[in-house]
Amino acid sequence: MLVETHNLRFPTQGFCHVVEITGEIQANLDQGSIRNGTVTIFVVGSTGGVTTVEYEPGCVQDMEDLYNRLIPPTRDYHHEKAWHDGNGFSHMRASLLKPSLVVPVVDGRLRLGTWQQVVVLNFDNKPRQREVCLQVVGVE
Amino acid sequence: MLVETHNLRFPTQGFCHVVEITGEIQANLDQGSIRNGTVTIFVVGSTGGVTTVEYEPGCVQDMEDLYNRLIPPTRDYHHEKAWHDGNGFSHMRASLLKPSLVVPVVDGRLRLGTWQQVVVLNFDNKPRQREVCLQVVGVE
Amino acid sequence: MLVETHNLRFPTQGFCHVVEITGEIQANLDQGSIRNGTVTIFVVGSTGGVTTVEYEPGCVQDMEDLYNRLIPPTRDYHHEKAWHDGNGFSHMRASLLKPSLVVPVVDGRLRLGTWQQVVVLNFDNKPRQREVCLQVVGVE
Repeated sequence: MLVETHNLRFPTQGFCHVVEITGEIQANLDQGSIRNGTVTIFVVGSTGGVTTVEYEPGCVQDMEDLYNRLIPPTRDYHHEKAWHDGNGFSHMRASLLKPSLVVPVVDGRLRLGTWQQVVVLNFDNKPRQREVCLQVVGVE
Repeated sequence: MLVETHNLRFPTQGFCHVVEITGEIQANLDQGSIRNGTVTIFVVGSTGGVTTVEYEPGCVQDMEDLYNRLIPPTRDYHHEKAWHDGNGFSHMRASLLKPSLVVPVVDGRLRLGTWQQVVVLNFDNKPRQREVCLQVVGVE
Repeated sequence: MLVETHNLRFPTQGFCHVVEITGEIQANLDQGSIRNGTVTIFVVGSTGGVTTVEYEPGCVQDMEDLYNRLIPPTRDYHHEKAWHDGNGFSHMRASLLKPSLVVPVVDGRLRLGTWQQVVVLNFDNKPRQREVCLQVVGVE
């Protein structure tokens, strides 16, 4: 049994920036030796999340609209009383979506649907580097 | 260490069809040899999700009501401008609920509560076959 | 390859009690021998959930406000028609947030951000003992 760790780091814009990383995950799997198991995709930090979506401009815009509607930046958040950094909404969005996603790896490939891509969302209210840990557990 | 892959395929109705699969997962575990580890339950495709719930008719109806309220089919979604297939709401529901769930396997059994069942939700706006991959990682 | 199971049990208050368990998870990892892999944090039962958040009083209050707004206790839920126990909202919150979270373990440490803590939420409408299973899968 093997455990292989990969770390991604990339710049993001703020509020609800959707970054597609399916290709990068697969490229990291291709460089390792695990052929069957799982990959845990984990966003380090408390203002980001990860999920899958059909990655096309309409769905990306719909995700922005969805989070603006469910958890708007314009409400008052208690988090800001202590920190005054204006990103209370970012923390709530991230805690709802959650920072991890586990995808089966079968015969060396992510077991995704054809129109199902892995996306990382930066909910913070400013551009920032995001760090994503890929933890692959399985067998050759 | 072992990795065992099972694939489920079953018909579903549209919009928010809740299908209980706890028994099928357990039956697949029973046929394999992993006694301790985890099972990753992964819905292939971008219009479905998986979670746990107390599976009884009231909660099933409440889930339909919840998603109709939070992410209604009647809103305008940008996804539809490109595709005109009327399932923008399906993609948003699926991306919020997410396609994977990991459950511990202890002594050969799913480590669930008594009133906690695994359910797959088809959010698409039409009946469709759903494909679910069970990836079991662990030891005998 | 190893699988190590730990069980946590602790009292919680009702409605949306947020309990931070990062330190307890790390303490359990420290007592085991797995240095690299993943830990699946699983809330047993259908009225609880788990996620990460910056654990400080403002975010805790914001989470209560968020769930009260998205899934209020004051609505009518079909679940209650059968059970009359007043916790239909608890089941919906738990099914949306989901009972499991997977965090990479790297060099014996949870791979979290500095201001990212693991929290369990009891959504039930009364105080109760919560049971959390930690399933660690990996290598020494």
